[in-house]
Amino acid sequence: MNIIGHYINGRVVETGENFLDVDCPSTGEIESKLAMADKALVYEVINVAQKAQEDWRKTPPAKRAQIFARFKTLVENNSEKLCELIGKEHGKISHDAMGELIRGIENIEYAAGIPELLKGEFTKDVGGKIDSWSQFEPLGVVVGITPFNFPAMVPLWMYPMAIACGNSFILKPSERVPSAQLFLAGLLQKAGLPDGVFNIINGDKEVVDALLQDDRVEAVSFVGSTPIAQYVYQEAARYGKRCQALGGAKNHAIVMPDADLDNAVDQLIGAAFGSSGERCMALSVAVAVGDDVADALIAKLTEQMKSIKVGHYSDKANSFGAVISQEHKERIEAHISSAVEQGARLVVDGRDIQVPPSCENGYYIGATLIDNVTAEMTSYQAEIFGPVLQVVRVDSMEEAVTLINDNMYGNGTCLFTRDGEAARYFSDEIKVGMVGINIPLPVPVAYHSFGGWKQSRFGDLCIYGPDAVRFYTDRKTITQRWPSSGVREGIKYSFPS
Amino acid sequence: MNIIGHYINGRVVETGENFLDVDCPSTGEIESKLAMADKALVYEVINVAQKAQEDWRKTPPAKRAQIFARFKTLVENNSEKLCELIGKEHGKISHDAMGELIRGIENIEYAAGIPELLKGEFTKDVGGKIDSWSQFEPLGVVVGITPFNFPAMVPLWMYPMAIACGNSFILKPSERVPSAQLFLAGLLQKAGLPDGVFNIINGDKEVVDALLQDDRVEAVSFVGSTPIAQYVYQEAARYGKRCQALGGAKNHAIVMPDADLDNAVDQLIGAAFGSSGERCMALSVAVAVGDDVADALIAKLTEQMKSIKVGHYSDKANSFGAVISQEHKERIEAHISSAVEQGARLVVDGRDIQVPPSCENGYYIGATLIDNVTAEMTSYQAEIFGPVLQVVRVDSMEEAVTLINDNMYGNGTCLFTRDGEAARYFSDEIKVGMVGINIPLPVPVAYHSFGGWKQSRFGDLCIYGPDAVRFYTDRKTITQRWPSSGVREGIKYSFPS
Amino acid sequence: MNIIGHYINGRVVETGENFLDVDCPSTGEIESKLAMADKALVYEVINVAQKAQEDWRKTPPAKRAQIFARFKTLVENNSEKLCELIGKEHGKISHDAMGELIRGIENIEYAAGIPELLKGEFTKDVGGKIDSWSQFEPLGVVVGITPFNFPAMVPLWMYPMAIACGNSFILKPSERVPSAQLFLAGLLQKAGLPDGVFNIINGDKEVVDALLQDDRVEAVSFVGSTPIAQYVYQEAARYGKRCQALGGAKNHAIVMPDADLDNAVDQLIGAAFGSSGERCMALSVAVAVGDDVADALIAKLTEQMKSIKVGHYSDKANSFGAVISQEHKERIEAHISSAVEQGARLVVDGRDIQVPPSCENGYYIGATLIDNVTAEMTSYQAEIFGPVLQVVRVDSMEEAVTLINDNMYGNGTCLFTRDGEAARYFSDEIKVGMVGINIPLPVPVAYHSFGGWKQSRFGDLCIYGPDAVRFYTDRKTITQRWPSSGVREGIKYSFPS
Amino acid sequence: MNIIGHYINGRVVETGENFLDVDCPSTGEIESKLAMADKALVYEVINVAQKAQEDWRKTPPAKRAQIFARFKTLVENNSEKLCELIGKEHGKISHDAMGELIRGIENIEYAAGIPELLKGEFTKDVGGKIDSWSQFEPLGVVVGITPFNFPAMVPLWMYPMAIACGNSFILKPSERVPSAQLFLAGLLQKAGLPDGVFNIINGDKEVVDALLQDDRVEAVSFVGSTPIAQYVYQEAARYGKRCQALGGAKNHAIVMPDADLDNAVDQLIGAAFGSSGERCMALSVAVAVGDDVADALIAKLTEQMKSIKVGHYSDKANSFGAVISQEHKERIEAHISSAVEQGARLVVDGRDIQVPPSCENGYYIGATLIDNVTAEMTSYQAEIFGPVLQVVRVDSMEEAVTLINDNMYGNGTCLFTRDGEAARYFSDEIKVGMVGINIPLPVPVAYHSFGGWKQSRFGDLCIYGPDAVRFYTDRKTITQRWPSSGVREGIKYSFPS
Repeated sequence: MNIIGHYINGRVVETGENFLDVDCPSTGEIESKLAMADKALVYEVINVAQKAQEDWRKTPPAKRAQIFARFKTLVENNSEKLCELIGKEHGKISHDAMGELIRGIENIEYAAGIPELLKGEFTKDVGGKIDSWSQFEPLGVVVGITPFNFPAMVPLWMYPMAIACGNSFILKPSERVPSAQLFLAGLLQKAGLPDGVFNIINGDKEVVDALLQDDRVEAVSFVGSTPIAQYVYQEAARYGKRCQALGGAKNHAIVMPDADLDNAVDQLIGAAFGSSGERCMALSVAVAVGDDVADALIAKLTEQMKSIKVGHYSDKANSFGAVISQEHKERIEAHISSAVEQGARLVVDGRDIQVPPSCENGYYIGATLIDNVTAEMTSYQAEIFGPVLQVVRVDSMEEAVTLINDNMYGNGTCLFTRDGEAARYFSDEIKVGMVGINIPLPVPVAYHSFGGWKQSRFGDLCIYGPDAVRFYTDRKTITQRWPSSGVREGIKYSFPS
Repeated sequence: MNIIGHYINGRVVETGENFLDVDCPSTGEIESKLAMADKALVYEVINVAQKAQEDWRKTPPAKRAQIFARFKTLVENNSEKLCELIGKEHGKISHDAMGELIRGIENIEYAAGIPELLKGEFTKDVGGKIDSWSQFEPLGVVVGITPFNFPAMVPLWMYPMAIACGNSFILKPSERVPSAQLFLAGLLQKAGLPDGVFNIINGDKEVVDALLQDDRVEAVSFVGSTPIAQYVYQEAARYGKRCQALGGAKNHAIVMPDADLDNAVDQLIGAAFGSSGERCMALSVAVAVGDDVADALIAKLTEQMKSIKVGHYSDKANSFGAVISQEHKERIEAHISSAVEQGARLVVDGRDIQVPPSCENGYYIGATLIDNVTAEMTSYQAEIFGPVLQVVRVDSMEEAVTLINDNMYGNGTCLFTRDGEAARYFSDEIKVGMVGINIPLPVPVAYHSFGGWKQSRFGDLCIYGPDAVRFYTDRKTITQRWPSSGVREGIKYSFPS
Repeated sequence: MNIIGHYINGRVVETGENFLDVDCPSTGEIESKLAMADKALVYEVINVAQKAQEDWRKTPPAKRAQIFARFKTLVENNSEKLCELIGKEHGKISHDAMGELIRGIENIEYAAGIPELLKGEFTKDVGGKIDSWSQFEPLGVVVGITPFNFPAMVPLWMYPMAIACGNSFILKPSERVPSAQLFLAGLLQKAGLPDGVFNIINGDKEVVDALLQDDRVEAVSFVGSTPIAQYVYQEAARYGKRCQALGGAKNHAIVMPDADLDNAVDQLIGAAFGSSGERCMALSVAVAVGDDVADALIAKLTEQMKSIKVGHYSDKANSFGAVISQEHKERIEAHISSAVEQGARLVVDGRDIQVPPSCENGYYIGATLIDNVTAEMTSYQAEIFGPVLQVVRVDSMEEAVTLINDNMYGNGTCLFTRDGEAARYFSDEIKVGMVGINIPLPVPVAYHSFGGWKQSRFGDLCIYGPDAVRFYTDRKTITQRWPSSGVREGIKYSFPS
Repeated sequence: MNIIGHYINGRVVETGENFLDVDCPSTGEIESKLAMADKALVYEVINVAQKAQEDWRKTPPAKRAQIFARFKTLVENNSEKLCELIGKEHGKISHDAMGELIRGIENIEYAAGIPELLKGEFTKDVGGKIDSWSQFEPLGVVVGITPFNFPAMVPLWMYPMAIACGNSFILKPSERVPSAQLFLAGLLQKAGLPDGVFNIINGDKEVVDALLQDDRVEAVSFVGSTPIAQYVYQEAARYGKRCQALGGAKNHAIVMPDADLDNAVDQLIGAAFGSSGERCMALSVAVAVGDDVADALIAKLTEQMKSIKVGHYSDKANSFGAVISQEHKERIEAHISSAVEQGARLVVDGRDIQVPPSCENGYYIGATLIDNVTAEMTSYQAEIFGPVLQVVRVDSMEEAVTLINDNMYGNGTCLFTRDGEAARYFSDEIKVGMVGINIPLPVPVAYHSFGGWKQSRFGDLCIYGPDAVRFYTDRKTITQRWPSSGVREGIKYSFPS
């Protein structure tokens, strides 16, 4: 059976005391075994990373940039292979895998512009003949811990910028989808990255804790669920590290009476069901302002949802694929049931989905639409992370805004309207980090930064984009005066002013 | 007896279950009593701050800036009064109080430029006819906890920028030096700040904990000792907040054989003994490269130190004043003794200082010089925070750099040389956040940012300057597309690329 | 009679071969005589400015900033006096004078933030151990030539930033409104500006040419009419200088069928008639999309215009005052007549305005509204610069956009709508530099920059705001490597890569 | 015979009334004929460019960036071919051609980061509920006119950034070295650039004038000699365009007594003789401070110069190759003779150089060293643009600085020293745009900007790097307020404040 290893110091390391099964959600078959690290291996990989960083930090930024320019081309040239690796372990259809990969590549491109981004601030004459400037220096060893839902993209949100800033990086990917990153590691080596600067270690909580507790790790980037994000954030702080930890979401779209409804429906279907709804930016709640809009929305959604096809990741005709595991499938089904029990109206039920015999052990659940959901229902309160769109009916935009602001999450949201004032009111009042106006998945492009508000993110700086530079570097401020011959200054006891 | 109160919602509140004595270090006399808050009052002040912020965040940045422009002028016009309040409670001589005040004013000036600093990033056409931009929005209620050594300046590092960014602010000042800030609160009100946006609450660990644990507090800025900084950083994270926590220091100056020695001696004396050495940027260790330099340095220092005068804060002829308390005085004396016991050479002993009868109950200790100190000595390892300059002798610049890099602190450091290559090597290799080349106290100006490395600072962003904007705001990214009439887009299941 | 002089080297200089009458447009009375410079005086003032700049450039930016912070306060404290000086020589009502003054003060505030704005870019390791950074250094002597319509504001667009950047400045103000700037010069001196850094010289084309032709003048900022702007731009280039020359305007507002019409009418009346229409950002053409809108607009405008009052500058009850001169009054009247002759419909005629006897020699013209204007009419093609609002009727938004884009000017424009898509289409397609959405006078705030497109501005950089820093400084890039002892590098014949 | 054409709308156009011989300086043989355009063809190419720009400007910046990322890879993959084309027409040795090509590629890389660079400034709440932001929009058609000495690099300083900003571009390359750019045009097309966005037109002054006078051309970038730069700058202004025109240079290196002399000599030889001295950044004057330094310098230079080899461009063992033409060779020789006649000492004479028979019709001149040159000599005053290093002896650094500051040019300069204070004094006092400290050719890297001072550059913005964005775009500022239902604002006659 195929063994998937760690990646340490430029080599694949397949050792491990434990091996974990990695299955294919589309078929339910176990295809590989993943080597799981122990504390000793964590210690070793940190050691490797720390040593490699010493030289890497001295490599001029422009030369680091070259490696990422080459990496970009290599990833583009191997995108089919990568989509296959993503699809097999995650279940997402290849067109969707390509979508995330392209977003990941955009982060590589941004890292290739590091010389511009790393510029410090120079002030001539902070005082007479005294100059002062800032250098944004790498931290040392930084760690990334990433979730299953974007096997390629989320790690690429982190390490290109971290490494371009002069750090070495240790990735702890999701144990469900390890292969895409292992393949990318090889491409990065081929692009010219010195061994030891980028490393992958597979493992469970023991490994995570070992990384969080080690003094040589300076910073942690995390993406996952809110409880784990909170744990990672606390633990990182307890050990004196900086940390950015992104958690869960519950993203609402408000549909206004003046919205372009056909467009809104198209967008909602893609944003609610794409990638089986397993996205932290998935739109899982539509808030219809007024019953007229709600009724029309339900009617159009129901009609459109008939054309959705669900199945094996390799068939591009499919709209979306399996969810990540049998347990997750059952959890989603339980949420649908609870909504019905608590009084919501199940308009389209995805639980009875039929798939071809070859896929019948896969973890499938069809697109589901639930109307008359209220904020008190369990299904509303949870992050379902499945292909389930819930419709909440409200009487006014204010009510919709209050609903969203009262939610514990604040990742993404969207407003469908034609009205300039409604849009400005919404973007001003809403307590959410990423806001779309007629854009259902307002994921910022790579040259902006990604981050939610409230329980969706812990830490001061967002992930990727401009914020990444500041997160992955520390400021050093140098103040300089040169003594001129013969000139002596008097003693100053006072604080310099 | 004079009662010093809290400042809540624009009024001085003198209630409190406990009252703490506030003394004058120059004379040892108790001059006032400080009202100490309980949890209920903390709850109330947070409530006040939260309510005030709702309107304040909607005040255009340019109008907020006007308040700080007026505040600057008011502080300048009241600087004598403020220096008196600082001197009485802290003990520092008025010229030194003026020094810190001017530095504080510079932070007010920087806050008056907030419209420029708050600009977000706008991208036309992140995709066809889709625009995206960032808004840096205030967090809500933020807290500052500050130490005794800079009664005016350190709080001014925090709240002008926090408030200019649209937040409301709660200051928990050092209980030893509360009066300067209470006076400044009045000036800020006079400058036009709405009540409730800036508040002061006095208290002990119970108050600090109540602030750290309250969900309505979004961010904490702290300056103090490293163990407390660490505690605050951890606790803030445990309650999901962002935090920047600045801790202790041990600042070294390397004196190279080619240094302008007379200048270096002048600078060292000011930087080691000014404000009785009670500065986190004080230079407490001189590292002499070679015995020739060391001998000359000791000789010149000894000679110069003869002219140092120590005494009452109000006498401008004094070089520096009392230390903050009797306990602190004894702690410093114990460090001096331990150095001698462990083999160092006490060149100038400040323990036997004579002061006028009116000051004989003050907490005085004279300028002290110790030679032949080594890294193993207790006095080297501790942050003495007193007027004690220790000289370490090394054989090479590399040895000096290693000594500094091995130190747990990384706040400030300085190199005395004429050589360009030595300076560049130093600023590149040194693991310290604020570096001076022939500048003994390399405190960044207000338009750069302040922050050490290693155990001297916890968190990703530095205090004041450009970093303050990012610390006191959260990024909101808006992505916008307007539907054109008649145009409908197809359903997209893939992640947008 | 009152003599108004030049301001050279910190002193008012009243010499001159010629003296020009300066009158009060509100009454037609001649109140002062203005000393006019000859070439020799121009030569002298440049000499003074050049000498003063040598020290001024070495003054740290933070110290320069202090002067502008004080200047701001002084101007605020003297605003009544300044409005009187502006009103008397220009004719604008005191509330309008206050409006321009406040805008001018905002430019002073921006200049007080110069330390942040002057920061250069620092790159560590452009190559191994090679650093590179930029310093934005002052140019030397720069010149500003300003028009009559904003006696205080337009010069304040220029010299605060020019001087804060380290230059010395020579202002050649409009000979019709010299007093406000002369008064401001005194305040600037009081604020601490060294003599010779700011100077004023009065004169005609001979003086302008002498300034443009002198090699010691490095840059020219100009605001005036397009033909003169073009001349100044060419001449400056001919003598190797950099130049930004702002010219005339013809600003259109499109009124869409979905506009908030009452609001649009309110805004239009202020923007068309305020300051007698003598603003380069005045809205002089309303383009109504569809006859329904046009008819309603005309009806509401006609009604509202009844409450407009015209008269003496000192009466705050007046809406606007006299135009700048008798000749100008006659020119405006001729434009009104020609519109009628060429087929337009004169809805409200301001030519027959009645004023009190004390003002009957003033240069008054009332608010005028003309309907059915077409692009072929002389009155449409000219920049009337008077209180005349012309309405053009079109059938579609595209037609309106084409009309605006075909106009030779591209200063400001505005769209009245509620629709997000219309606004985005407009701001994208329109070939105009300053665009308002439901904002009739889209003058950028001081921390953005001002500049039109097409024949409304010559040069690459806009006036005031961020662009001002780059216009008033030159980039110096320093690349530095320090030789280490003993290391020698090989000869390189190739271009370094 | 090989015909070299224009490149218009994606096709090579070989028409022309005149054809110009293009020779190979290494052999003196005519190898091709260049089609020369007339006014009609200029008119056509502008037309093509203008049409193509309409769509190009709407292409999202991120998509434009992709083209430059691909272009970079294509240029890298074709670098050998390009070096051959450069060498044949210019004469420079292939390692030197590779040097300029790599510098050119760095500008392509910078253009690939355009999404970050094009970000505008967004301000929420310039006033209550009013937002304002800037969009940096392309100008339309821009023109580049480039010299013979860097056939690949100098055009690449211009068009990648101009095109990435959304403009279309017309290149008028030097008629001596047209082939490299024609080849690059093909690669750019292959990279995906739409036809018509990049065009090349060959021609003489008639073509240049036609480009300068056409209203549809919005901006001109020029690099060449100072008189032509001045002409282009004036003419561009006369026709209302923006222009940056880079002219000649006379670059001095000061050699201080404390310099690392061996290193300085190595650097000087490369910087003085590389590319036959035909670089605007060539170091043509060494200013020795003190006779001791001068004597040692001359001795070491003389010794080192013995190993210099001159010959055919294809032989990598050569240090440098032929100069551009027979006339230019004779001009250089005349300068050498005049120096001798005017009293200088000819230490090494390059005029009698021997080359192999196959090269004997080439335009060769050997490395030449002249001592005791003074500022009065013709050879000092001219920009020789050949492999001639002149040594001026001075007594002090001040004298050296004055010599440089008095020179009409201010392109580049360099100081050789070990002393921090000397370096800071030099970089502060020197009136030169690009300064090297122990760096002989201080050409800024692609992410900084290139530009001299004084007669070396006309215009406000430098070429390439950050300044390029501002030069190739115009600022559009949008101010937006959305009307809320029911709320009406009063009429405002005053200028908004």
